[in-house]
Amino acid sequence: MSQDRQQLLVDSLRRLVRRGAVGNLERILAKARSEDVALALSELMDREARSIFGLLLNDPARAAEVAGEYEHARLPSLWQGLTAAELKPVFEELASDDAADILQRLDEDLRVSILNLLEDAESEDLEELMQYGEDTAGGIMSTDFFSLDKELTAREAIVGLQDNPEAEGVFYLYCVNEEDTLVGVVSLRQLLMVRPSTQLKNFMNSDVISVPLTEDQEEVARIVARYNLLGVPVVDEFNKLVGIVTVDDVIDVLRDEATEDMLLMAGVADEDIVNATTSHAVKTRLPWLLAAVGGGIGAAALIGRFEHQLEEAAILAAFIPIVMGLGGNVGVQASTIVVRGMAMGQLDPTKFASALFSETKVVAIIATVCASVAAAASMVMGDFDPNLAGAVGSSLVVVMTFGALLGTAVPMLSHRFGIDPAVATGPILTTSIDLVGVLIYFLISAAWLGL
Amino acid sequence: MSQDRQQLLVDSLRRLVRRGAVGNLERILAKARSEDVALALSELMDREARSIFGLLLNDPARAAEVAGEYEHARLPSLWQGLTAAELKPVFEELASDDAADILQRLDEDLRVSILNLLEDAESEDLEELMQYGEDTAGGIMSTDFFSLDKELTAREAIVGLQDNPEAEGVFYLYCVNEEDTLVGVVSLRQLLMVRPSTQLKNFMNSDVISVPLTEDQEEVARIVARYNLLGVPVVDEFNKLVGIVTVDDVIDVLRDEATEDMLLMAGVADEDIVNATTSHAVKTRLPWLLAAVGGGIGAAALIGRFEHQLEEAAILAAFIPIVMGLGGNVGVQASTIVVRGMAMGQLDPTKFASALFSETKVVAIIATVCASVAAAASMVMGDFDPNLAGAVGSSLVVVMTFGALLGTAVPMLSHRFGIDPAVATGPILTTSIDLVGVLIYFLISAAWLGL
Repeated sequence: MSQDRQQLLVDSLRRLVRRGAVGNLERILAKARSEDVALALSELMDREARSIFGLLLNDPARAAEVAGEYEHARLPSLWQGLTAAELKPVFEELASDDAADILQRLDEDLRVSILNLLEDAESEDLEELMQYGEDTAGGIMSTDFFSLDKELTAREAIVGLQDNPEAEGVFYLYCVNEEDTLVGVVSLRQLLMVRPSTQLKNFMNSDVISVPLTEDQEEVARIVARYNLLGVPVVDEFNKLVGIVTVDDVIDVLRDEATEDMLLMAGVADEDIVNATTSHAVKTRLPWLLAAVGGGIGAAALIGRFEHQLEEAAILAAFIPIVMGLGGNVGVQASTIVVRGMAMGQLDPTKFASALFSETKVVAIIATVCASVAAAASMVMGDFDPNLAGAVGSSLVVVMTFGALLGTAVPMLSHRFGIDPAVATGPILTTSIDLVGVLIYFLISAAWLGL
Repeated sequence: MSQDRQQLLVDSLRRLVRRGAVGNLERILAKARSEDVALALSELMDREARSIFGLLLNDPARAAEVAGEYEHARLPSLWQGLTAAELKPVFEELASDDAADILQRLDEDLRVSILNLLEDAESEDLEELMQYGEDTAGGIMSTDFFSLDKELTAREAIVGLQDNPEAEGVFYLYCVNEEDTLVGVVSLRQLLMVRPSTQLKNFMNSDVISVPLTEDQEEVARIVARYNLLGVPVVDEFNKLVGIVTVDDVIDVLRDEATEDMLLMAGVADEDIVNATTSHAVKTRLPWLLAAVGGGIGAAALIGRFEHQLEEAAILAAFIPIVMGLGGNVGVQASTIVVRGMAMGQLDPTKFASALFSETKVVAIIATVCASVAAAASMVMGDFDPNLAGAVGSSLVVVMTFGALLGTAVPMLSHRFGIDPAVATGPILTTSIDLVGVLIYFLISAAWLGL
């Protein structure tokens, strides 16, 4: 839906809910796609959105679709005032991965009441799902998959499908043996291609790609992307099939992880920042800036130690920005290439020495060019003092090399020690380079200028 | 495949190709997945990879799978020495979107020869595909889709499918009328659920989401992600069905676009940077750093104008880093939030005033806190001179506000003028903030300190 049509939907909903035109509202809601309704609700005022969700509750399947697409973190606010009994039908319709994720965000009282109201099988499923780490295959998988005994025939498989209209994302049918161990996969397409009496085990692909419950969601996404899959089965430690991760969930993971990395590297500690409230935005952004303030105070203290030299040669101050700017820029280039290269699976995090070696070759050339230009400029600006030019040029070479190597090393080492590379880079990295850069610059300058 | 097993594949291939053990090589290649072989080839030396691809040519379908997964930009080098006649069978097997993309990267002679060897229908298809912009729906779509007359029955549709084992990504069947206009969609699943004699038009979903040929690939990806689709049909200006974009292509688009944005914002002008040669890396990274050198020289010239003030109060130099650092950091935060928010469709680029207003509220608080801390520190470091503290604090408030608003405005305005927001931000933004920041700092300080 185009931005204009989406805006139109938002405006109509707002107008009708203010007028209390329930009939018209229901008509519009019935025609719109759930994804568009979810987005529209997120743009309305809380009170308006709550009234509309109240109307959706008349059709629990529809309410579940909208809730699944709505930002889960904001559902507790959308559902304010609703009881467990009113929400129960929605949870019965929700895909299990969405249901578990949403339950975890509700108040404990409400969560427990809803689980108590659900059928035992369903609430046990959900409680199990909630145990898995949020960022693991178990945490994002759905248990509404469809598996079949490998001894069945194609005809029986088709009948089985017809009897299970609820199963999610059925484009692959997973084949299991009598112990529910995953032994193969057939596509819906294949099912149509073979003679109806053929047993699944005779045409299934037994080289099926699966992931363990504890696999990191990023790795799951990489596997789906790499092998162009529509979904990947999740197995427990006995290779028993326990769930599936579908490609639409993988797309969300890829987008969220990219967003998280970009924001972390920019010093924004929480991905839910667009359209955040002022106080949430301040809380998310201030810590990193205060770290930078700390770094800046450190730099000031360092430079304060060279006050004597600055009094002798005030022109030295003029080149602080270029030294800091280039050290930081080259460090950001290097760290971004490494962070993204690792995330895309193009850069092997264990090949540390070879990454440093490549970066050394590149920065040697880059730093020499930049330093030459800066030295020439400082020559002109500093009354043709070759010592000033030498100080500026050689500082730049040293600081840029330091920045590039630190920018390469920090994300690779953080990865090795299990720290998110994107956290360890960003403002912390540039602030460190600034500090060391200023120190190097003044030490080198003092030596060249004999101060 | 785990990193270890992938490394094992690379090592085995290398060893066997050096020994010339063709039989063993063929056995290993037959067992490995095409995606893994493609990745392994990219890690081998050019000469080794060429020998192995030579072996793959015995099975054109397999060679096409590997070529499709191999980095297309590097295929001309992998195929060095191969003739049009040797490559023709590979092109016959390639998906049309891959074939068109690869052809565009070959030398004109080879491209023309291959097109001449292919059947007329096929080469016409490819020539048409090559006309569409690389980043549009037309540029990434495949023409190997499967469509059916809406008058057909479910049974006839299944027979049609069985007769077309080649059609790509068939999870949806697109229904057309006698003019090939797209009128509906049915899923494979639905086909199994209805009575075989039901006509498609009686159960198809006629509210089908499609995209025009010229739609930007990012928008195509957003639509597929938003509506959780496995593919989206592409239509021409008469709503005639001309191709499909499948979800695996969308995943590639999403990953590539995120990579491109991250690297551009870090001042890296080309996404093919991981594992690039030294000279390519230098060419990709140097331009932005030279721009920063230019900015740094500008800052030096500005500061040079305040040499007299610096001689009076050398301590002023100590606070250059904090002013520059925080202006830059807050600008990077703001611009990253805006760039990513627009890319994710969470931030409406036309709501410029409201974005600036939100950012103003946030930065007012953030800047006040940071400035207070910095002013207190400068008070201590500057022999308790309240004027120095006032100068540092008020400069920080002004520079941070400027940085935050520029960081918000630049990407939104670039979007409006059709410039990639990620290009316009990054080093250009921070360098501009540095320059203006230094100027503001010295002007305010000179005023406070009466210099």
